[in-house]
Amino acid sequence: MTTQIDRTLNDVNLEAVGGLAAAIHEAPEKGQTVWEAEVTWKGAFRSEAKIRDFAPLPSDEPLGLGGTDTAPNPVEQLLGALGNCLAVGYAANASAKGIEINDLKIKLAGDLDLHSFLGLRPGHAGYHNLQVKVHLDADGTDEQIAELHRTVLDTSPVGHTLGRAVPLSIDLA
Amino acid sequence: MTTQIDRTLNDVNLEAVGGLAAAIHEAPEKGQTVWEAEVTWKGAFRSEAKIRDFAPLPSDEPLGLGGTDTAPNPVEQLLGALGNCLAVGYAANASAKGIEINDLKIKLAGDLDLHSFLGLRPGHAGYHNLQVKVHLDADGTDEQIAELHRTVLDTSPVGHTLGRAVPLSIDLA
Repeated sequence: MTTQIDRTLNDVNLEAVGGLAAAIHEAPEKGQTVWEAEVTWKGAFRSEAKIRDFAPLPSDEPLGLGGTDTAPNPVEQLLGALGNCLAVGYAANASAKGIEINDLKIKLAGDLDLHSFLGLRPGHAGYHNLQVKVHLDADGTDEQIAELHRTVLDTSPVGHTLGRAVPLSIDLA
Repeated sequence: MTTQIDRTLNDVNLEAVGGLAAAIHEAPEKGQTVWEAEVTWKGAFRSEAKIRDFAPLPSDEPLGLGGTDTAPNPVEQLLGALGNCLAVGYAANASAKGIEINDLKIKLAGDLDLHSFLGLRPGHAGYHNLQVKVHLDADGTDEQIAELHRTVLDTSPVGHTLGRAVPLSIDLA
């Protein structure tokens, strides 16, 4: 007996995801991936991040922080990356579990004390905490939705990167 | 005797940065900032992050990962956020130290094992490590550049967020 899977549920290409998982199961080294970006400074607090062949992503700081306010700033971009990652997680895992998503919005906020960034005192210059509220409208029982949510948290690349201390080497070339 | 500061070095608005630092020194609560983003799922693995009034930042996954490859993916966006943050750090601190930047490029790479994301085994789904190479051409002695580099690492909001485990609450609303 085979189970019929709706391969277009949530528009997700489950075949591609399943094929990749099978390929990595067969040859674990295929799971080792490297991701890259190149950032170019454009003057003042403006810069742009080039990723593969996509248009560069611009970055700036608000006027109050000394920028020219032409684009989201890096700590906001970080929130966007986390939210986008969680969205992939819900879409992928809902589809695998046969749950249709009607609507999904993710609101993210983070608290950051500027003292260290501005050199006013040493210490943690980053987010002290991050709060994420997931507004998920999906066709599943409360239990199914709660299990989907747990699966997403257990498998989120950006979520795990932020929730743990990542070894980081930053060197002058 | 007053020291003359070139307020337009590297095009950086040092007056604004200095004014903010002075304001926070006077009233420390002004250093407590909150940053926000809202992500909307757009079908399949596509989503977009809305930040303030800027155009939404699109996100997708490569074909091999089941996406439609219309935009950088979240783990790439994370690298971009880190590089953009470091660029602000070099620009701000070089300007404060009287160092002119001629050119600055930052190359970022991260290793990520897909096993956990794909549900093939439990564990860390995020970056195992991040490598950043900073190509800085600036008018300073080796010692000045090395000290600038240390200052940037000591004060980077995104760098510190990634280098430490950040308390993260992700809840269904």
